[in-house]
Amino acid sequence: MIIVLRPDATEANVSHILEKADRLGLRANVSRGTERTIIGLIGPEDKLQAIPLEVFPGVEKVMPVLAPYKLVSREIKKEGSVVTLKGNVTIGGKNILVMAGPCAIEGHEILLSIAKKVKAAGATALRAGAFKPRTSPYDFQGLGEEGLKMLLAVGKETGLATVTEVMDLRDVDLVCRYADVLQVGARNMQNFSLLKELGKARKPVLLKRGISSTMKEWFMSAEYIMANGNHDVILCERGIRTFETETRNTLDINAVPVVKQKSHLPIVVDPSHGTGRSALVGSIAKAGVAAGADGLIIEVHDNPEEAWSDGEQSLRPEKFEQLMKELALVARAVGRDM
Amino acid sequence: MIIVLRPDATEANVSHILEKADRLGLRANVSRGTERTIIGLIGPEDKLQAIPLEVFPGVEKVMPVLAPYKLVSREIKKEGSVVTLKGNVTIGGKNILVMAGPCAIEGHEILLSIAKKVKAAGATALRAGAFKPRTSPYDFQGLGEEGLKMLLAVGKETGLATVTEVMDLRDVDLVCRYADVLQVGARNMQNFSLLKELGKARKPVLLKRGISSTMKEWFMSAEYIMANGNHDVILCERGIRTFETETRNTLDINAVPVVKQKSHLPIVVDPSHGTGRSALVGSIAKAGVAAGADGLIIEVHDNPEEAWSDGEQSLRPEKFEQLMKELALVARAVGRDM
Amino acid sequence: MIIVLRPDATEANVSHILEKADRLGLRANVSRGTERTIIGLIGPEDKLQAIPLEVFPGVEKVMPVLAPYKLVSREIKKEGSVVTLKGNVTIGGKNILVMAGPCAIEGHEILLSIAKKVKAAGATALRAGAFKPRTSPYDFQGLGEEGLKMLLAVGKETGLATVTEVMDLRDVDLVCRYADVLQVGARNMQNFSLLKELGKARKPVLLKRGISSTMKEWFMSAEYIMANGNHDVILCERGIRTFETETRNTLDINAVPVVKQKSHLPIVVDPSHGTGRSALVGSIAKAGVAAGADGLIIEVHDNPEEAWSDGEQSLRPEKFEQLMKELALVARAVGRDM
Amino acid sequence: MIIVLRPDATEANVSHILEKADRLGLRANVSRGTERTIIGLIGPEDKLQAIPLEVFPGVEKVMPVLAPYKLVSREIKKEGSVVTLKGNVTIGGKNILVMAGPCAIEGHEILLSIAKKVKAAGATALRAGAFKPRTSPYDFQGLGEEGLKMLLAVGKETGLATVTEVMDLRDVDLVCRYADVLQVGARNMQNFSLLKELGKARKPVLLKRGISSTMKEWFMSAEYIMANGNHDVILCERGIRTFETETRNTLDINAVPVVKQKSHLPIVVDPSHGTGRSALVGSIAKAGVAAGADGLIIEVHDNPEEAWSDGEQSLRPEKFEQLMKELALVARAVGRDM
Repeated sequence: MIIVLRPDATEANVSHILEKADRLGLRANVSRGTERTIIGLIGPEDKLQAIPLEVFPGVEKVMPVLAPYKLVSREIKKEGSVVTLKGNVTIGGKNILVMAGPCAIEGHEILLSIAKKVKAAGATALRAGAFKPRTSPYDFQGLGEEGLKMLLAVGKETGLATVTEVMDLRDVDLVCRYADVLQVGARNMQNFSLLKELGKARKPVLLKRGISSTMKEWFMSAEYIMANGNHDVILCERGIRTFETETRNTLDINAVPVVKQKSHLPIVVDPSHGTGRSALVGSIAKAGVAAGADGLIIEVHDNPEEAWSDGEQSLRPEKFEQLMKELALVARAVGRDM
Repeated sequence: MIIVLRPDATEANVSHILEKADRLGLRANVSRGTERTIIGLIGPEDKLQAIPLEVFPGVEKVMPVLAPYKLVSREIKKEGSVVTLKGNVTIGGKNILVMAGPCAIEGHEILLSIAKKVKAAGATALRAGAFKPRTSPYDFQGLGEEGLKMLLAVGKETGLATVTEVMDLRDVDLVCRYADVLQVGARNMQNFSLLKELGKARKPVLLKRGISSTMKEWFMSAEYIMANGNHDVILCERGIRTFETETRNTLDINAVPVVKQKSHLPIVVDPSHGTGRSALVGSIAKAGVAAGADGLIIEVHDNPEEAWSDGEQSLRPEKFEQLMKELALVARAVGRDM
Repeated sequence: MIIVLRPDATEANVSHILEKADRLGLRANVSRGTERTIIGLIGPEDKLQAIPLEVFPGVEKVMPVLAPYKLVSREIKKEGSVVTLKGNVTIGGKNILVMAGPCAIEGHEILLSIAKKVKAAGATALRAGAFKPRTSPYDFQGLGEEGLKMLLAVGKETGLATVTEVMDLRDVDLVCRYADVLQVGARNMQNFSLLKELGKARKPVLLKRGISSTMKEWFMSAEYIMANGNHDVILCERGIRTFETETRNTLDINAVPVVKQKSHLPIVVDPSHGTGRSALVGSIAKAGVAAGADGLIIEVHDNPEEAWSDGEQSLRPEKFEQLMKELALVARAVGRDM
Repeated sequence: MIIVLRPDATEANVSHILEKADRLGLRANVSRGTERTIIGLIGPEDKLQAIPLEVFPGVEKVMPVLAPYKLVSREIKKEGSVVTLKGNVTIGGKNILVMAGPCAIEGHEILLSIAKKVKAAGATALRAGAFKPRTSPYDFQGLGEEGLKMLLAVGKETGLATVTEVMDLRDVDLVCRYADVLQVGARNMQNFSLLKELGKARKPVLLKRGISSTMKEWFMSAEYIMANGNHDVILCERGIRTFETETRNTLDINAVPVVKQKSHLPIVVDPSHGTGRSALVGSIAKAGVAAGADGLIIEVHDNPEEAWSDGEQSLRPEKFEQLMKELALVARAVGRDM
């Protein structure tokens, strides 16, 4: 922790800080420059970050030295983590995982139909929502447990791993009984009560980045899950909010190499939510693979015109099939399999 | 709902949309311009918004006509709402309400000490957190029910209305038993499961705006609470996230007159979180009152250096007392009491 | 300048940096913590900032200690600057200056008519554009020198100081001959060639903040003008770009107290561009005064329906007159005159 | 242009708008819904956009139907444009163009050394600045004409096309005499006086997107150049400003497919400025190619530690050479040559 003092800071101000440091058992290093005095405090960063040093008299600003996340960090674990979704379906290795399916579970027939098609095209996981976070209370909110039953059945029939969102922390056990991966939506990325429950779950968690969360905050939310006992976390970049209105969100492709540098966790790109427009999904999916993503999550629907939610960003199965062929070429060009 | 067709849209595309409209019982109005054909669909907006019209062949873009919120809207209720916190403590009338207190409840003694001082300075509500949403799992998470008991006791002793955050939807009943107003933090603004529970509560809700939520989304979250049965909602602007780093957040002062124009709900400004720096709190509090806010929520702590959280944005009681005098002058200048 | 090394940095990495520092005549302070080694370099910050320390082997991050601006800073000049626009029209003292007028100069008659009304209402400066920065090349671009002549004539007839934008650096001398204050628009805030020319001008400059400029960048642009010889700079907050769409821009009220803290230059608030909607101008103007602004710049037009530009954010003269009365009350409440 | 009226709009309000439309020779279409009346105005969009319809009594909001750009639009020109930089160096066809070189021209020797290396690695254009836009007036501002002479000489010796920035509109002719492509920096994207001068130039223009410019504004700036006579415009995405601080800017990869959809102009991606950190350049360059970019612009320096500007985002020649091989594989995977 570096403390920069104001030009008019007094010796009493310096002593006051040094005493506080001493009481906390921290070492201090005082450096007197031409225009500013700087104090470096050495010791456990968590103890340091709990002190509101900004309000100490004479302090101009405080600069942390270490990142606040630990378990997420590549400093602690050098090699990339491989997370197992189900059987031999894994993410984080050489193979790029594709999760595909409809935004919402609408019925057994249509779910099975879509699942078979995405599997034939090469996807190994099925995504579909039983609980839908909707901005409006008047919109369709999902089929709930009835939908989960369909998901389980279709997962069994096709052999696909299943991914579905959990919104209500009381539903964590329920969803664990039916699905292989628990998704945390962007709006719940900092629902800390939910994150703690997920820390106790024994299924992998797909953690979507909040629409205006910094990567550091995203890592801290992953840290919540890991610190509570569940180390199987998969990060998912799904677009951030900017001033641009041509796309629904701005997929932050830069997050892919930054995650790879800072963390050992696998990273998935969501080009469907990341752009919000089906015509852009293909280009952004390819960009994600080229940038080094470990997986993709893509919305596919038999008939987007009749989809109960997010139809405007869903691909038709034939488009998805074509895209998978193109993606395999890009994957190979960057040394990955698909 | 206005549908703009692409320049190359065909008559078949137009007919396809008109048939869909007809099946849904909607009226349609086709206008053929020099460069574009436009279709206006007339009928209930919620039915309209559920159709993914963007994916219909020939469609270029879709523009909604009506705002998606109803109960929140000033169209439905012309006069401003007055919400009662407790006894004769209300918000939304001529009087400006000030809620003040520490970020976190740290103990009975210190809470009582601060409460007495903010009351003496003119505040009529006490804010203090028993459950703290913290970015890091390693930070202090609040005293929980033990803290709520202290809040109840201090509220009784001082006569102040009490405001505290609820983070876990399982705690709604618990918090209702101890506090007068339930606060929803910025990170939970779109925790729809929590909003639904709050819709069933019989205590007013202070709904903070998410750090990157549009005002429309904020209103939709209030709509969730109201549509589930609780009409006592107070909106709170607490700063949005921008590129600027001089302030922790950017308090969006423009939200005050926009809320007044679009909604009948009371609006509170939070200059402590809105700026994140105690030296800026006074100026922004005055700006909030001048812009037309119905209330303020301000962090005050006996000794910010020792505060367990948010010390850098807390005012000392003597500063708060001085500010209250200055605020009263501004309130009077804009025709309000304080 | 603080240099944080990576956990795997070697002694050779440290030596390499120390040698570089030595060659530049800088002092260095090495602090070895439990998890990181930190090097503090002491010496002139400008020399330090020119070295790309991030690329030196073993370096994790580099943190500057000092703000990069000097002449703008309140550290160099403790008391606030008072800038004279013309005669006894000044900004920066106890009195709050109001500049009002149409967006564009449209003709002598209408400019004179508006000027007389804003003067009667209490404004002491007239704002009106002869060169208009328009997003579209097909929009009205201003009357040019013909417009400047009208501005000069109306300024003389009414005694109002005149403020007008200069867009083309070749026009600086021309505009100086006709107007009292040269305005730099938000889009040109980092047009460094223009800023240098303005540094040579002998008229005050009103420097608008770029729509996505940090305050630090804004101060650096003021520094350009001052470092080139012109110390009469007035800062103007006119709204930044965020994700919000209810307002055309988001007026950043927080900029007012931050400018007052960091700089001695006067600060003006522009509620017309800051919101983009005439119905919001009054509330935001009051907020600006309450927050401590030294001046306001407000668009007023006799007939906004017929305005050649920005009609949607212009006030009618009778609304402006009423607002001026309300603003005077707020000014008095915060110890200012108007 | 679609005009949505307020629920309390009167027949007189409707008539007033229809009269205005009639006076301007526009057709009108009135549609009366259950909750709102809507007026569609049909006629030339530029005439429509000049009327401040928001201030007409009874108007709630105004929604434009057509994009404001014409010459830039793919509606006007279906096939993608191919721009010739010099000889047979073109951009916009099957081949992906790579422009590489140092941020600033520092001397003839070092420029030639870098140029030879980037050429050997496969680049066909050399980028290097003689005029540098620097946030601080105290930073190195470029070698000016002396630097341009070096650029011309090195361009001749190596056969590379040359790309350099023009900041001052008085320098357009000068730069045209020495360089093959004129670059407009992000800060000058809406320096309309400069854009007009470039419209008269007979050299291609590389137009960087402003850090907080919407794509629509970017296209309008290209329209300025084209409307003034120069149709050889190349768009360049170089990162936008968001709240994220891990990267210097957020490269908006979504811009690539959006440009391809909306416009016929070639699009270049700048991973050096887009991320600001050399370790991320490779991943983002590959993402750009995979997303469909027509070219890349990459900073390369023999010794980034000694670079006079932007050293932290420059690649060493050997890294660049390796990257070019990897990029060629990705290019082939998406059906392009390099």
